[in-house]
Amino acid sequence: MSSDLPQPLPHIARLHAYTPGLQPTETGWVKLNTNESPYPPSPRVAGAILRELGSGADAGASLRLYPNPTGAALRAAIAAHHARECPAATLTAANVCVGNGADDILNLFVRAYCSATAPLAHTEPSYSLYPVLVAIQDGGCEAIPFGRDMRLPVEKIAASKAPVIFLTSPNAPTGVGFATAEIERALATYRGLLVIDETYARFAVENAIPLLARHTGVAIVRTLSKSHALAGIRIGYALAHPEIIGALDRVRDSYNTSRLSQIAALAALDDTAYYDGMVARIKATRARLQAAFAARGWFAYPSQSNFLFAEPRNARGETGPAVAKSAYDWLCAHKVLVRHFPSHPLTAPFLRISVGTDAEMAVLDNTFQAWLKNA
Amino acid sequence: MSSDLPQPLPHIARLHAYTPGLQPTETGWVKLNTNESPYPPSPRVAGAILRELGSGADAGASLRLYPNPTGAALRAAIAAHHARECPAATLTAANVCVGNGADDILNLFVRAYCSATAPLAHTEPSYSLYPVLVAIQDGGCEAIPFGRDMRLPVEKIAASKAPVIFLTSPNAPTGVGFATAEIERALATYRGLLVIDETYARFAVENAIPLLARHTGVAIVRTLSKSHALAGIRIGYALAHPEIIGALDRVRDSYNTSRLSQIAALAALDDTAYYDGMVARIKATRARLQAAFAARGWFAYPSQSNFLFAEPRNARGETGPAVAKSAYDWLCAHKVLVRHFPSHPLTAPFLRISVGTDAEMAVLDNTFQAWLKNA
Repeated sequence: MSSDLPQPLPHIARLHAYTPGLQPTETGWVKLNTNESPYPPSPRVAGAILRELGSGADAGASLRLYPNPTGAALRAAIAAHHARECPAATLTAANVCVGNGADDILNLFVRAYCSATAPLAHTEPSYSLYPVLVAIQDGGCEAIPFGRDMRLPVEKIAASKAPVIFLTSPNAPTGVGFATAEIERALATYRGLLVIDETYARFAVENAIPLLARHTGVAIVRTLSKSHALAGIRIGYALAHPEIIGALDRVRDSYNTSRLSQIAALAALDDTAYYDGMVARIKATRARLQAAFAARGWFAYPSQSNFLFAEPRNARGETGPAVAKSAYDWLCAHKVLVRHFPSHPLTAPFLRISVGTDAEMAVLDNTFQAWLKNA
Repeated sequence: MSSDLPQPLPHIARLHAYTPGLQPTETGWVKLNTNESPYPPSPRVAGAILRELGSGADAGASLRLYPNPTGAALRAAIAAHHARECPAATLTAANVCVGNGADDILNLFVRAYCSATAPLAHTEPSYSLYPVLVAIQDGGCEAIPFGRDMRLPVEKIAASKAPVIFLTSPNAPTGVGFATAEIERALATYRGLLVIDETYARFAVENAIPLLARHTGVAIVRTLSKSHALAGIRIGYALAHPEIIGALDRVRDSYNTSRLSQIAALAALDDTAYYDGMVARIKATRARLQAAFAARGWFAYPSQSNFLFAEPRNARGETGPAVAKSAYDWLCAHKVLVRHFPSHPLTAPFLRISVGTDAEMAVLDNTFQAWLKNA
């Protein structure tokens, strides 16, 4: 055995890797920790996969072949989908890059646009993956801090000299939405690339796609994981100027999305009526959950996403990081999984709770009641 | 419309992107250009996907959930699979990283180990993706040239000061296999990380997995795309020391493989008998194809892969880049797709031809005959 183990690059050795939410393998959990849809995807998804697999002795035969490298049909369908929604943006397949989940797309932006001398700025607290992606790249990173009100820091974005900014809109983990007009105010002076991560935009009152018609320096990132109940198939995408898409394609793996994932995504995009209904249902449950927190006297940010960011208050009326931790631990011990972000002062007193089914929300409510009585 | 389009990093703007083999969307092609299996995957693959999807109104419901982030069950199954094959390597799940195809794994090695001051060396001609991955990373890159005999340049590898070397074994596009003892000779003095890309090893007489028991600086890369007829699902993996796997996991996307892909891979690894039969069949066809080339007086490197690298000779007895191009164009015009690599003097006179079904090999043979008569 040779004793000298090859070492990774120093910045990789130093790296604090991203921690995804727990994905328990046992059943019995009320899983409200990773903002998955509580409802299944459109039945057309399974139907399309079954058709692709075929039947008989040759079932699955097409899996021997590589997927379409660009996901050409999917790019066209995505462009058509958003062109219907926003004709002014005049989107075509050349405005679309498809990724292995939105995380893949975000990583492509970091690789193509961010370096030690080309820093990336991101709002904070926001999706905690951003600084990790920048650290993997050994790039420069600047935080644009939110205040406790969690309103868009328009002036700070407008004044930023960073060549790339990542903005989560609606924000995570707070769920707070930003008016497109506010974002556009920042674009009046910001001269770099503003990547708007619209993972949760389907649950919001508006989205920033109209900005694509007016600003070449804007890119939108979307995913089918949340609003299309397809976290398992890993499809996200970018909408941007064709030259920006070209830069992403240069650093993209040729076969970054699986054959079945492309097919599943196409089927999902084809069923707007199903997803309109699903999103409406989630928003209605969200409103009831928000009302329940308010009735209990707990603060929660107004949410435009499929989760609530709520501040538990214990029986003595206290809030804070220790109270949130106590509630988290109690929920976890009773097989209700939510998310707690203890490392930032603005997030530590809160829990992020995905909107589930009505039955799951009832279990959540009962478990919080029991915590109030017993903890 | 703001006129100033944000520019990617200079090295990305300069990049020559990797060109994958054509994936035609029309039918009717004899597709021998990307080394896919001519046979379908094990029927257990479609069976497992069908079970995961379920049936009825809830079909596909599990797709709403994220995949297991590490592919834990798949890592364990891969380790067990190779531990049976090579008990001396004492592989466990800690020795395995699962990627979105072998290309994802190769990219993780580049990101974790290669920089401007930590160059990556690779044999040349080999898989042309390597220098592209390094260029995306803006890393140093050194070619270790093969001679026309395409034998392993043991001394050059042994003497390399590069912290990482990528070695394709069996090599592509030549198909030439390397003896494990020869590779180990180079390891007597080479002190960096030797990544052995064993994409085609299932078609070879031996593989380098036994080296894992004796050298911590060796990593093996495998894929299910070729030998398991699953190019469409994008599953590749690395076998290495747990600390090397840890470095890859730090730069890996948390959810890099889809739920259905993990399930498909598990089902495939469970059907050794099916794949033993499939590989034997491909090797038998390869031997007949090699004999047919020899009978025609065409040189082809002895292949330990699922393709042949053959030097077409025209009716006047000439070989060379123009002859290979003429044969390629003729085949293409007659809907037989192979691969031509005109940019390197050692590859330009050759065509890389995937081993297909017997019927496909008959079409290939007839099309070459027609070329000889007519071109």
